[in-house]
Amino acid sequence: MSSRLPSAGFSITIRVALPADSNAIGRLTTAVGSAEAVVTALDVVDSDHVRVLVDLTCDTSDATHADQVVDSLRALDGVDVRKVSDRTFLLHLGGKIEVQSKVSLRTRDELSRAYTPGVARVCLAIAENPEDARRLTIKRNTVAVVTDGSAVLGLGNIGPYAAMPVMEGKAALFKKFGGVDAWPVALDTQDTEEIIRTVQILAPAYGGINLEDISAPRCFEIEARLREMLDIPVFHDDQHGTAICVLAALTNALRVVGKKIEDVRIVVSGAGAAGTAIMKLLLKQGAGDIIACDRLGALHRGMPDLTPNWEWLAANTNKGDFSGSTKEALRGADVFIGVSAPNILTGDDIATMADGSIVFALANPDPEVDPREARQHAAIVATGRSDQPNQINNVLAFPGVFRGMLDAQAREYTEEMGLAAARAIADVVGEDKINANVIVPSVFDARVAPAVAAAVRAVVKGEKSEPEIVVTIPQ
Amino acid sequence: MSSRLPSAGFSITIRVALPADSNAIGRLTTAVGSAEAVVTALDVVDSDHVRVLVDLTCDTSDATHADQVVDSLRALDGVDVRKVSDRTFLLHLGGKIEVQSKVSLRTRDELSRAYTPGVARVCLAIAENPEDARRLTIKRNTVAVVTDGSAVLGLGNIGPYAAMPVMEGKAALFKKFGGVDAWPVALDTQDTEEIIRTVQILAPAYGGINLEDISAPRCFEIEARLREMLDIPVFHDDQHGTAICVLAALTNALRVVGKKIEDVRIVVSGAGAAGTAIMKLLLKQGAGDIIACDRLGALHRGMPDLTPNWEWLAANTNKGDFSGSTKEALRGADVFIGVSAPNILTGDDIATMADGSIVFALANPDPEVDPREARQHAAIVATGRSDQPNQINNVLAFPGVFRGMLDAQAREYTEEMGLAAARAIADVVGEDKINANVIVPSVFDARVAPAVAAAVRAVVKGEKSEPEIVVTIPQ
Repeated sequence: MSSRLPSAGFSITIRVALPADSNAIGRLTTAVGSAEAVVTALDVVDSDHVRVLVDLTCDTSDATHADQVVDSLRALDGVDVRKVSDRTFLLHLGGKIEVQSKVSLRTRDELSRAYTPGVARVCLAIAENPEDARRLTIKRNTVAVVTDGSAVLGLGNIGPYAAMPVMEGKAALFKKFGGVDAWPVALDTQDTEEIIRTVQILAPAYGGINLEDISAPRCFEIEARLREMLDIPVFHDDQHGTAICVLAALTNALRVVGKKIEDVRIVVSGAGAAGTAIMKLLLKQGAGDIIACDRLGALHRGMPDLTPNWEWLAANTNKGDFSGSTKEALRGADVFIGVSAPNILTGDDIATMADGSIVFALANPDPEVDPREARQHAAIVATGRSDQPNQINNVLAFPGVFRGMLDAQAREYTEEMGLAAARAIADVVGEDKINANVIVPSVFDARVAPAVAAAVRAVVKGEKSEPEIVVTIPQ
Repeated sequence: MSSRLPSAGFSITIRVALPADSNAIGRLTTAVGSAEAVVTALDVVDSDHVRVLVDLTCDTSDATHADQVVDSLRALDGVDVRKVSDRTFLLHLGGKIEVQSKVSLRTRDELSRAYTPGVARVCLAIAENPEDARRLTIKRNTVAVVTDGSAVLGLGNIGPYAAMPVMEGKAALFKKFGGVDAWPVALDTQDTEEIIRTVQILAPAYGGINLEDISAPRCFEIEARLREMLDIPVFHDDQHGTAICVLAALTNALRVVGKKIEDVRIVVSGAGAAGTAIMKLLLKQGAGDIIACDRLGALHRGMPDLTPNWEWLAANTNKGDFSGSTKEALRGADVFIGVSAPNILTGDDIATMADGSIVFALANPDPEVDPREARQHAAIVATGRSDQPNQINNVLAFPGVFRGMLDAQAREYTEEMGLAAARAIADVVGEDKINANVIVPSVFDARVAPAVAAAVRAVVKGEKSEPEIVVTIPQ
C-alpha cells in the first residue's frame, strides 16, 4: 500500500500573489489538484484592483511532493509565490506543552501560602510522612514519559533530542484524553544500567513511569528491574498499551465472526517488545493456540540460539511445535496479528487462512499487507492507520490506564489491569454498533478513557482497601 | 525578633455553629482576637432561626498557635467547632503546577500534525540538526529546577520528597514572573557524581538548569562540572540569584547614603554558597574592601585547614589581613551583609559601624539582628522578610535572568549577566522613588523581569551574533 496519500501531517500554506482577473484563483486550485494535492483552505489576505494576495493551504503526501506542488504554482503565468509555511513545523515552534501554575500568585498572602513561609509546613509534613507526597505534590497526578530515543516510531534510533516531539505529543495526549500531567524525560544515554538508575533517581516527583520507544531487548530488563525497585506503576506503552488495544480489538472481532479466543489459531508476526506483550496478554485471556513468528519463522521448542525472550515464547506458545515460515503458519489460521514489517504478505496469503479470518496488520506507516487486498479475503481487517477503518491506536489505552492507576494510587501495573482495560475498551463499542468495520471505538470517543480508568480502579480496589480519589477527565 | 506574627502562611478556616443571637458572632471574633490571631474573612454558610453556620478564616503564627485559637473557640458557650481546614495544605492538594497542551487535539487533522504521522518529519529534522531542538521542542522555553533536598529553605536536609513543594512553588514563580516553563527535578541521591551524571543525562529536554537548595560544598563542584559539560546555562539560585539581588540592593543603598562600592568596607557573615557568590559578584563590581566571616571569624591569609572555597576567599578578600570575630570586624564598617544565622548581632553591634551604615540581615526566617533594633543605628536596613521594608527576595532575579538567557539561547550563565541583571533591578526603583526604605522594587513590580531579561539578552548579544527571539512575559 502506498503511503503517498495526501495527509494533514504534510499540510503546507503557500502565500501567492495573483492577477485580479476572475479565473486566476481557479487556475491556482486546478494546478494544485493536477499536482495531486488537496486544497483545504483558501484565504484572501489582501487585494487591490490588479492583484490578490492569497494563502492557499493544501495537504501533500510528503516533503518532496510539497516541493513539487509549490513548483507547479511557480510555473503558472502571473503567479508569484511569496512564502511557503509548513503547518506541522509551525505548530511545533517552541514545543507542544507548557507548565502552568494551579495556584494564584497575585498577592503577598497567596505567595506566602504557595511559597515561603507557608510551604515549609507542607515540606515538614512530607518529611515526617513521605507517603503524603502522593497527596500534597504533583506526584498525585504526574507521569514521566521516559525514552532513550532508541526506537522512535518507525524512525529507529534517532536519540533523545529528536525523540522529544513524540514525547511532547504523548504528554499532550495524556492530558487531553486522561487528565494526566505527563512530562517528557528524554535520556542522553542508552546504557541499560544508567537508564534504570536515572529513572530510580527521578522517581520521587512522579506517580507513574511510562516507558516509551526504548528498543528491545533492553526495554524488557529496564521494565522488569524498575518494577521491582519502584513503588509506583511502570508501564511500557509499546508493550502493554499495544497489547491492551489488540486484545480489545480481537475481543470484538471474535464477537463479530462468532469465534472464541480459546478455539482460534493466532499467528503473530514480530516477536519483539509489542509482539511478546500481545502474546502474553492473549495467553492470560485464555488464547489456546498462538504461533509466534519472527525472522527465523515460527518459534518452536528446540530451536538453537534463542534470546531469553524467544526461548520463553518457544516454550509457552506453538503447542503443536509447528516449524516453518510465517506464510506457512498462516495456512488455516483464524487470526493474523502483525507488529513487524511492511508488505510481507499478499492477498493470496490471506486467502489461505480459515473462513471468517481476522487480520490485524499493524506495522506503521505501511502495514504487513495492503488492507484493501486483505479485505478481499478476510472477514475483518484492522491497521494502525487513521485513513482506514478499525484503527488500533494506543491512545485508546494509556490515558485511561494511568488515570485509573493514579486515582487508585496503584503501586504497580498488573496484567489484570490490562485485561480489564481491554474489556472496557471493547465494551464501549456496544452490541448495537459493532460490525466488521467497527471493532474499536474512535480515538475521539470521550467514553473510552473514563471506562478504562474505572476498570483499572476496580482492579486496584480489589487488591487493596485504601480509599480512592477520582479525578474527572476534562473533555 | 520573634517570628510569631500571624501570617497568611498559617491561615486556617474554622467552621463553627453558633446560636442565632445578635452578639454571638461578636463573641467569636473577640475570642479570636484575644487569642492573638487575625480574622481575615467571615462567611455565613447556612442559618435558620436558632443557629448560624459560619466559616471564620484567620491568620495564625504557627501550628501550635492555630490549635490554641481553635481551643479558645471550643471553650465558648454554645459554640460548636465542626471542622478546621488549613488553607496552606488545601492549596497544596494535588500539587501546585500542571502540564498543559499548547496545541489543539480536537480533530484527526490536528492529531496528525501534533503526533503521528506529521511529527515524524519534525523528529527527522532534529535528528539531522540537533540545534533545531532549541526551536522545535520545549527546550526553547524550559528550565529544570534541580534539587537533592539537602538544604531546603531553613529546613535542612529533608530529602527529595519533602523538597517538592518548594520546587513546585519555584516553578510557579518562574511562570508567573518570567513566562518560563520550569519543571521540578527532585533527585533521590545526594552523591555528587550521581547528581552530575543525572543532570547531564536529563539535559536534552531543557534550555537551562536551575540548581536549588543543594548543600555546600557539593553545590560548588556540581555547578562547576555541569557548566563545563553542558551547552545550556547552569545557574545556582542560592548562589547567583542571591548575589544579584544583594548587589542590586547594595547599589541603591550606596546611592542613598552617597558612598561608592570602591570605597566602603563590607563585612559578610556566612561564607557558604550564598556568601561566596555575593562576595565574588561584589568583587567583580569593584568592591575594594570585603571581610568574609564565618564560624572561625574573619577569613585571612595564612589560616590553617581551610576548605578550597575558604582558601580562595582568604586570598582574595581582607586586604588588610584583619583577624578577629564578626563583631570586631564590624567596628567602623560601612556595610554588613548577613547570610548566616539568626540573632548573632545586637543593636549595640550595629552602633559600632561607620556613619551611614547599611545592614542586610538576610538569615531566614529570623535575621542576624532584629531589624527594628538595627534601624536605631543604621541608615538602611534590609531583610529577607516580607513583613519588613526592603525585602531582598530572589524572585526579583531568577525569572528575568532565565527569560533573557532562553530568549538569547545563551549557552552559559556569566557573571557579566549577573552584573547587568543587578543594575537592571536597581534601576527599576527610579531616582524619584529611592529612599532608605525603598532600595529594591516590590516582588510584584511587573517591570522587573522584563528589565532583567533585556539586560541579560544585551550581554549575550554582545557575545554572539545570532539573532534572538523575544518572548513577552504574560502578567
